Amino acid sequence: MTTLSGHVRPQVTTGPIRGSRKAYLDGPGGLRVPVRRIDLSNGEHHDVYDTSGPWTDDTASVDVRAGLPAVRTNWVAEREPENGAVTQLAYAKAGVVTPEMRYIAIRESCDVELVRSEVARGRAVIPVNVNHPESEPMIIGKRFLVKINANIGNSAVTSTVADEVDKMVWATRWGADTVMDLSTGRDIHTTREWIIRNSPVPIGTVPIYQALEKVDGDPQALTWEIYRDTVVEQCEQGVDYMTVHAGVLLRYVPLTAKRMTGIVSRGGSIMAAWCLAHHRESFLYTHFSELCEIFRRYDVTFSLGDGLRPGSIADANDTAQLAELETLGELTRIARSHDVQVMIEGPGHVPMDKIVENVRLEEQWCDEAPFYTLGPLATDIAPGYDHITSAIGAATIAQAGTAMLCYVTPKEHLGLPNRDDVKTGVITYKIAAHAADLAKGHPRAQERDDALSQARFEFRWRDQFALSLDPDTAQGFHDETLPAEPAKTAHFCSMCGPKFCSMKITQDVRDYAEEHGLTSVEAIEAGMEEKSGEFRDEGGRVYLPLSPAAGD
Amino acid sequence: MTTLSGHVRPQVTTGPIRGSRKAYLDGPGGLRVPVRRIDLSNGEHHDVYDTSGPWTDDTASVDVRAGLPAVRTNWVAEREPENGAVTQLAYAKAGVVTPEMRYIAIRESCDVELVRSEVARGRAVIPVNVNHPESEPMIIGKRFLVKINANIGNSAVTSTVADEVDKMVWATRWGADTVMDLSTGRDIHTTREWIIRNSPVPIGTVPIYQALEKVDGDPQALTWEIYRDTVVEQCEQGVDYMTVHAGVLLRYVPLTAKRMTGIVSRGGSIMAAWCLAHHRESFLYTHFSELCEIFRRYDVTFSLGDGLRPGSIADANDTAQLAELETLGELTRIARSHDVQVMIEGPGHVPMDKIVENVRLEEQWCDEAPFYTLGPLATDIAPGYDHITSAIGAATIAQAGTAMLCYVTPKEHLGLPNRDDVKTGVITYKIAAHAADLAKGHPRAQERDDALSQARFEFRWRDQFALSLDPDTAQGFHDETLPAEPAKTAHFCSMCGPKFCSMKITQDVRDYAEEHGLTSVEAIEAGMEEKSGEFRDEGGRVYLPLSPAAGD
Repeated sequence: MTTLSGHVRPQVTTGPIRGSRKAYLDGPGGLRVPVRRIDLSNGEHHDVYDTSGPWTDDTASVDVRAGLPAVRTNWVAEREPENGAVTQLAYAKAGVVTPEMRYIAIRESCDVELVRSEVARGRAVIPVNVNHPESEPMIIGKRFLVKINANIGNSAVTSTVADEVDKMVWATRWGADTVMDLSTGRDIHTTREWIIRNSPVPIGTVPIYQALEKVDGDPQALTWEIYRDTVVEQCEQGVDYMTVHAGVLLRYVPLTAKRMTGIVSRGGSIMAAWCLAHHRESFLYTHFSELCEIFRRYDVTFSLGDGLRPGSIADANDTAQLAELETLGELTRIARSHDVQVMIEGPGHVPMDKIVENVRLEEQWCDEAPFYTLGPLATDIAPGYDHITSAIGAATIAQAGTAMLCYVTPKEHLGLPNRDDVKTGVITYKIAAHAADLAKGHPRAQERDDALSQARFEFRWRDQFALSLDPDTAQGFHDETLPAEPAKTAHFCSMCGPKFCSMKITQDVRDYAEEHGLTSVEAIEAGMEEKSGEFRDEGGRVYLPLSPAAGD
Repeated sequence: MTTLSGHVRPQVTTGPIRGSRKAYLDGPGGLRVPVRRIDLSNGEHHDVYDTSGPWTDDTASVDVRAGLPAVRTNWVAEREPENGAVTQLAYAKAGVVTPEMRYIAIRESCDVELVRSEVARGRAVIPVNVNHPESEPMIIGKRFLVKINANIGNSAVTSTVADEVDKMVWATRWGADTVMDLSTGRDIHTTREWIIRNSPVPIGTVPIYQALEKVDGDPQALTWEIYRDTVVEQCEQGVDYMTVHAGVLLRYVPLTAKRMTGIVSRGGSIMAAWCLAHHRESFLYTHFSELCEIFRRYDVTFSLGDGLRPGSIADANDTAQLAELETLGELTRIARSHDVQVMIEGPGHVPMDKIVENVRLEEQWCDEAPFYTLGPLATDIAPGYDHITSAIGAATIAQAGTAMLCYVTPKEHLGLPNRDDVKTGVITYKIAAHAADLAKGHPRAQERDDALSQARFEFRWRDQFALSLDPDTAQGFHDETLPAEPAKTAHFCSMCGPKFCSMKITQDVRDYAEEHGLTSVEAIEAGMEEKSGEFRDEGGRVYLPLSPAAGD
């Protein structure tokens, strides 16, 4: 076990989320797949998908300076690189079911053959660098639960290594399925090392950022060799997927000239500057096959970057964007021929009426490689609330088939997100992803809605909080006006007060109807006029007395 | 001018929103239509739709104890009730253009004939009680800008008259097109009086709440006479539209028996209890024509309530909901035969794949009466964030044709919203409404996105803040990390730092390309290899130096 270096003393949040505890589902071959188990007051329990790793396990002993236990070491060792590729894609194509696939099948409650076949046809990816054995295998593909990514990382202006490690643990606590470290400031290598060693989820990066730091921030000084060495360095560390803007071709740069907001991807603008300055084709494009060979050795997954994505409503679905997308399709086929897994990144800023077209074209041109989109923002006019503008777009594009959503925080366009922004972004994107899972008819999605709504109807307030995406906030809001303990079982809240609680009245109506046989349209229409007197005679008041402590 | 009574001393927020000022567009006959004018640093200005009334006019002298000036008094006086109906619908059907219609045409930047014809065919409503002359006319219909409503009002548990007046002014400041006073606690009449006299937007109510208070909260003690008198009292005060749950029929009550969450509408559950206790048809249904005659005298608009709307994903689009919707269509035709305007209320909780069907059925069964929906929430699992879960549904349903969206605040299901929650709800719903306007191709919608994106691309930070839906929050977030004055013109923010600002790099790329004639694909492909040297020789670094105060 390594000890991480430096003067860094990260403080991370540990222990279970309120109202739940870590549990494990057992699988063949000693597999232990984590879930978050919510014990309900009615004796039932509800398990939910858990991305938080050992950090939320009260029984685990984890030390941020030592890193997480390497749960996948043996699985990696059993692979035989001398006999061919080590990638999940290679195994899947060969009909081999890996331990990662079995783990995922339990995690997703699906058949393992669905996992294997979707990976084999390139419609799903399992981002697992052989050098990141701490990660818990997960899958990204439209036949599975919609995933979300949280971006973290410092900039030259603000933040530290410790801040970023804390943000990574915090983001996975609330449900981030992957985390991208987009650091561009100081200590890029060290920051990433601390993050990977402590991360239970796949880590993504954009290697061009570090490469640019190596040439003191001068894009035209970039070379293939510097870039390649940076990629190898990151592969060795255990980065699971990398954004590569290999579709920004020289001839596409002029297509952005008349745009409202030009090129808004950092990597895209760097490569455009390089292409123009050298008047040569992008080295990412010309050396793409060599890059594939490097990725293949570590089973790193491509996230083919949309360097020309629209940065405003005005630029959505324009020629520059779509030209690049077609090139990403070409690169997808090359990567797959090397047995390397591929995702495709998508926009950005897109009005709602143009969102579905993005998915259809991506599927058509990129052979259904998993789509991984940034929002998209459905309008430009709400800086400070772009988690919301983009959640609208994200839910819509995920419903149409996007496999993973990159979150947007309230700070988008304005500054670097802090810890609170990270949580808000993650919860907001869990909402968008889950709304899409429901709309797509995922067989397990509605169970949680049903469990929560049942708890709500039965005034099991603590169960309602525990089943929600953010129990702390739900309970906090409730307690602002009714903090006393009896309010946790009261048949009303401060929103309507005791006399106007529709759910309470409904329960009384329902009880009365059942007692009197009025539970069918036929019974009602039979005209049991005489019945009506009884309810009145019984003093059947259908509301509670005004005492806020009433709990009947 | 009346002086409002009681010991109430409301404090309301006045003065323009940051970066803007009140202006007026002149129209025929001395019309003055308010806009919020945003003066930009490049000498241009951008006008946006303004719901805030005189409260944001620095030149107006308004006193909350006196109420707003009655701008429509003369228009109302010029109507001739002895010669027939006074409703906008009656005038529109007769081919008469009212001053309200002319005002609205200026406000919506459309032809006045569109206003008249849409009202005449019942596809739009203008909620203007003759006794609310303080209100600035507005229209609700799918051919116009999507509108949003903010619910306020106290409950038995919390809040005061002064709080609610403050919330009303606050909600309209941020963009609420109408406000519903849903008070169920103390001082219902007084609270409403203060709100109406100070409101520049139409006020809606649910009269059954006050009627229930008059019978000490006992639903079975309700009578048509008590209800009718309450409605007349509210008509006299100036309520512009009223929710009437006349579609909750006795025979529909058993249809809710197997539901996950029963009846979640307060009015719906009250009427269900009444119907069952008396075993008689709802008095709202049996006396509907009399109600129409009352509404007609004041030009009050029906908002036909969906008392059986789904309160959970499980109950969406079920038999109870759709049975009631068909009855609302029947009631729509009766109301229109009395020349009374009608809107139809809609759900609630609906998964994304079932949203569009709601609009199609409403249009088909209710003859395209404007649809007015509460969200809908696209999932049940995020209490504390239901402004977001519902904004996803709201944007989707508005894109499909919903004319007005009732906001949901973060406190939904948990407690009564406070002032901050009201603002968050309003801004969130302005986002949803605007996203739908963009998707529907409203001719003016994209202008604001373009203005903001242009400001963003040109690093006019103050203009970007001023053009946003919430300038205070946008600037506040920016200033958290870069508060110094030079950062307001700097070509980067803390998100990416100076070296990685894609927009800055893009501008440099664009400048270079223009100087060297590289602005077309043809020029690029002509292979001007020699050009590439020049950019390097010029030291054309495409990023800024690291000083955060750099402003070039």
